[in-house]
Amino acid sequence: MTIALPAAFYAVEGVDGCGKSGMVRYLTDHLHALGCEGIATREPGGTPQGERIRALILSGTDDAWDPYAELLLMTAARVEHVRRVILPTRALGRFVISDRYVGSTIAYQGAGRGMAERFIRDLHATAVGAVWPDLTIVLDLDPAIALGRSRKRLTDTAVDEGRFETLDLDFHRRIRASFLDQARRDPDRHVVVDATGTPDEVRARTVAALDEWHRGRAAIA
Amino acid sequence: MTIALPAAFYAVEGVDGCGKSGMVRYLTDHLHALGCEGIATREPGGTPQGERIRALILSGTDDAWDPYAELLLMTAARVEHVRRVILPTRALGRFVISDRYVGSTIAYQGAGRGMAERFIRDLHATAVGAVWPDLTIVLDLDPAIALGRSRKRLTDTAVDEGRFETLDLDFHRRIRASFLDQARRDPDRHVVVDATGTPDEVRARTVAALDEWHRGRAAIA
Repeated sequence: MTIALPAAFYAVEGVDGCGKSGMVRYLTDHLHALGCEGIATREPGGTPQGERIRALILSGTDDAWDPYAELLLMTAARVEHVRRVILPTRALGRFVISDRYVGSTIAYQGAGRGMAERFIRDLHATAVGAVWPDLTIVLDLDPAIALGRSRKRLTDTAVDEGRFETLDLDFHRRIRASFLDQARRDPDRHVVVDATGTPDEVRARTVAALDEWHRGRAAIA
Repeated sequence: MTIALPAAFYAVEGVDGCGKSGMVRYLTDHLHALGCEGIATREPGGTPQGERIRALILSGTDDAWDPYAELLLMTAARVEHVRRVILPTRALGRFVISDRYVGSTIAYQGAGRGMAERFIRDLHATAVGAVWPDLTIVLDLDPAIALGRSRKRLTDTAVDEGRFETLDLDFHRRIRASFLDQARRDPDRHVVVDATGTPDEVRARTVAALDEWHRGRAAIA
């Protein structure tokens, strides 16, 4: 049984290929089936302007953008997403589930590309404001397994949004470590879910983790 | 007689319609005729990636972008411009003349749209680095005159990059005041040129101001 919090803001994070997008769809359906109103969205993107920025970022080769430029583009898209989608939806008392959010920026542009986490957080605080997910769900998976899944999907669908996915395994290991580190430093707002096994197994674990988190919040409230 | 400094970085600034683009072309030809090597460039833009950001920013209506998003996009384009064009060109001992630079961001996003100048400067320092023009030439003109010129040009050429130019006169007066204020606070790196009169008159004034600035620099060196 899921005890849905009104207007909670969820982010789903993890390395490329860990199953985020499918999980966002599943959780959205799950919450809708429980009678909760809300939306699924994604980053970078989630608004017409943000999707245009997404197309800019994800086109080209790995070195198409200076890391600072990439960070600023990601944050510009997030400003639009927060102001035009996330805050208005929460103001209506509805949930938001985002496929990636600032945790990905800390992981990819910070741990991955070497930007200072302090700068990323200060930029977020100034440009976006104090808008953080109520709960970030980290789908934790060894990048070697995740990249295998991801490559299979790219081959299956011929979707070529895989710029970040062509980077090397060490890079993706730093990303995984960053998500785990973020969760450890802010345990009240993160759950880490083991993302090995079948989709059904991961979904069951995620819903169980979500329920436990909600019960913890309800006990405090 | 112009005493050209090697590898100087010039920015030409001013309100929309003050004659910046024509002046950049003129000064580039002028310096080339004196035997100096260098390039003309512009912001936002100046690189393939930056020009794509320019197209994003300048499309749509005045409220298409949140002011923070706009500032981050401008700065992302500048990061690319500095890293890929301005610094490499200066490293070759060549001049760069840019049609707008960070002074425009301070004027438009700061004085115009109300972003804190401190944040704009901190963002520049962190993302772009300590890269400032050796000399910023402010073409000073009453926005009421400048906007008349600008509208005539738009009608003549049917170029529709005029998003900023559709904003109201008060907005453009704040822009003008900001450029004059920036020049007053950093007089060694700015010259203010009266941009009223014919193009030939403004060009003569600009070259005279440039020569005087170069003589001042040569005297110090």
